[in-house]
Amino acid sequence: MADALRHVEIVRVREGSRTAGSDRAAAEEPLEVRLHGQPFAVIMRTPGADRELAAGFLLSERVLKSADDLGTIEYCRDQAMQSVENVVNVTLIGSSSRDLDRVLAERRKTSVNSSCGLCGRLTIESLKNEVEPLRVDGSVQASVVSSLPDMLRNVQAVFDETGGLHAAGLFGFDGSLAAVAEDVGRHNAVDKVVGRMLIEERLPLSQHLLFVSGRTSFEIVQKALIAGIGVVASVSAPSSLAIDLAREGGVTLIGFVRGSSFNIYSHQERVT
Amino acid sequence: MADALRHVEIVRVREGSRTAGSDRAAAEEPLEVRLHGQPFAVIMRTPGADRELAAGFLLSERVLKSADDLGTIEYCRDQAMQSVENVVNVTLIGSSSRDLDRVLAERRKTSVNSSCGLCGRLTIESLKNEVEPLRVDGSVQASVVSSLPDMLRNVQAVFDETGGLHAAGLFGFDGSLAAVAEDVGRHNAVDKVVGRMLIEERLPLSQHLLFVSGRTSFEIVQKALIAGIGVVASVSAPSSLAIDLAREGGVTLIGFVRGSSFNIYSHQERVT
Repeated sequence: MADALRHVEIVRVREGSRTAGSDRAAAEEPLEVRLHGQPFAVIMRTPGADRELAAGFLLSERVLKSADDLGTIEYCRDQAMQSVENVVNVTLIGSSSRDLDRVLAERRKTSVNSSCGLCGRLTIESLKNEVEPLRVDGSVQASVVSSLPDMLRNVQAVFDETGGLHAAGLFGFDGSLAAVAEDVGRHNAVDKVVGRMLIEERLPLSQHLLFVSGRTSFEIVQKALIAGIGVVASVSAPSSLAIDLAREGGVTLIGFVRGSSFNIYSHQERVT
Repeated sequence: MADALRHVEIVRVREGSRTAGSDRAAAEEPLEVRLHGQPFAVIMRTPGADRELAAGFLLSERVLKSADDLGTIEYCRDQAMQSVENVVNVTLIGSSSRDLDRVLAERRKTSVNSSCGLCGRLTIESLKNEVEPLRVDGSVQASVVSSLPDMLRNVQAVFDETGGLHAAGLFGFDGSLAAVAEDVGRHNAVDKVVGRMLIEERLPLSQHLLFVSGRTSFEIVQKALIAGIGVVASVSAPSSLAIDLAREGGVTLIGFVRGSSFNIYSHQERVT
């Protein structure tokens, strides 16, 4: 597996003086995801957990509906049968494989709503046609929410010496860690975590809490909703459309988790 | 123009007690970009500077090569001839308009390198075939670099009450502000800044410095290189591929600008 960090030569400027040195940078490389050998997408990502990333990405794209649809995920092999980094081939089984031609054809069209009147409202409506709003039993204690930044930092500290990686952690409602991933892209980190749980056939994740570093966009809540995650929290701010989707989709959305304070944007009943 | 901020009802949890209140969230809405009336892409963005965003995005996508290729950028109109938010139609003139059918056809194919052996190296090579490495005269003083975070914060403070917006600022080598933009997406903020300069026919931007909030990915350096920007700086870390591209493309890349300290990752000769 390729390394998530890379040594780079740098010049440090400190108080007007310059010294040459070396540092570690978060690795970023393209990953090509193929479906049955045919190009589907290229994702810029940090190497590591590539199979998980491919699985989570294909779930988010609604190509996979569940673990039942997943056949194999393998690195592409060259003529000498050596596995090739940065190219992953996915095969589908079950109902998804019968849809393969349609999926690839749709991918080639620009998949947009072409009526003159696109808006966040319609974006949410079209997602609601495909994904049921969550119905989540159980709740999470405020003290568990407040402990998330430290818990994520503790498991992340091993990797992130660079300041350049986003992290996503999946926790049980009792605060137990289920999965963690890091990536230069925040959405990739979420795909890696969800993909791992998909591969382990642990979806839906309704009794789980997703904690992400940085801001919460529409896309992050969308990925959580599709995976059935009941609570999404972050150290930073959500966007307006992330809040709208969380409200309509039945996701508890929490932001600005700092010390013993945080803000709840939707479905506060799930926090006790 | 739609608002970049939106009031939302929230629940504040502070030291175990809960109060209902309101807050402002960064707006996020889809923008559909059409070429001669045909769907080309949908971008999740913060409303505002939509024409600039469309122009900068199409430059990055190599649909526009220069301001000479740009005909009109207008909001779509409905049957009552009212302009419709969130849909922008772009017309091309000159050589780009003759390429329109090819551009739209390529967009419908998954635009990937399908050889088994994709890597960052090849990604950079293919970009180098299209974009000349920069040759930049002039240099920027270390004190100007160190002043960028405060300068960006000062011009950003008007907008960002939410903590949810990324910012990009374009400055002359003397530190004078040329353009600033904010967006939930960092890459959108860069497209807005570059697009504004494109519309004003001020490209290439070799005597300019781009300063972005947050991390510097491959995509940010790619956008800077295509716009001819000589120096890219950020408060945070660059990725490995961003560093590689900056070195090969002739871009000075600076990270971790904090107080009077920063790191230079490429072409340090341009900092005095």
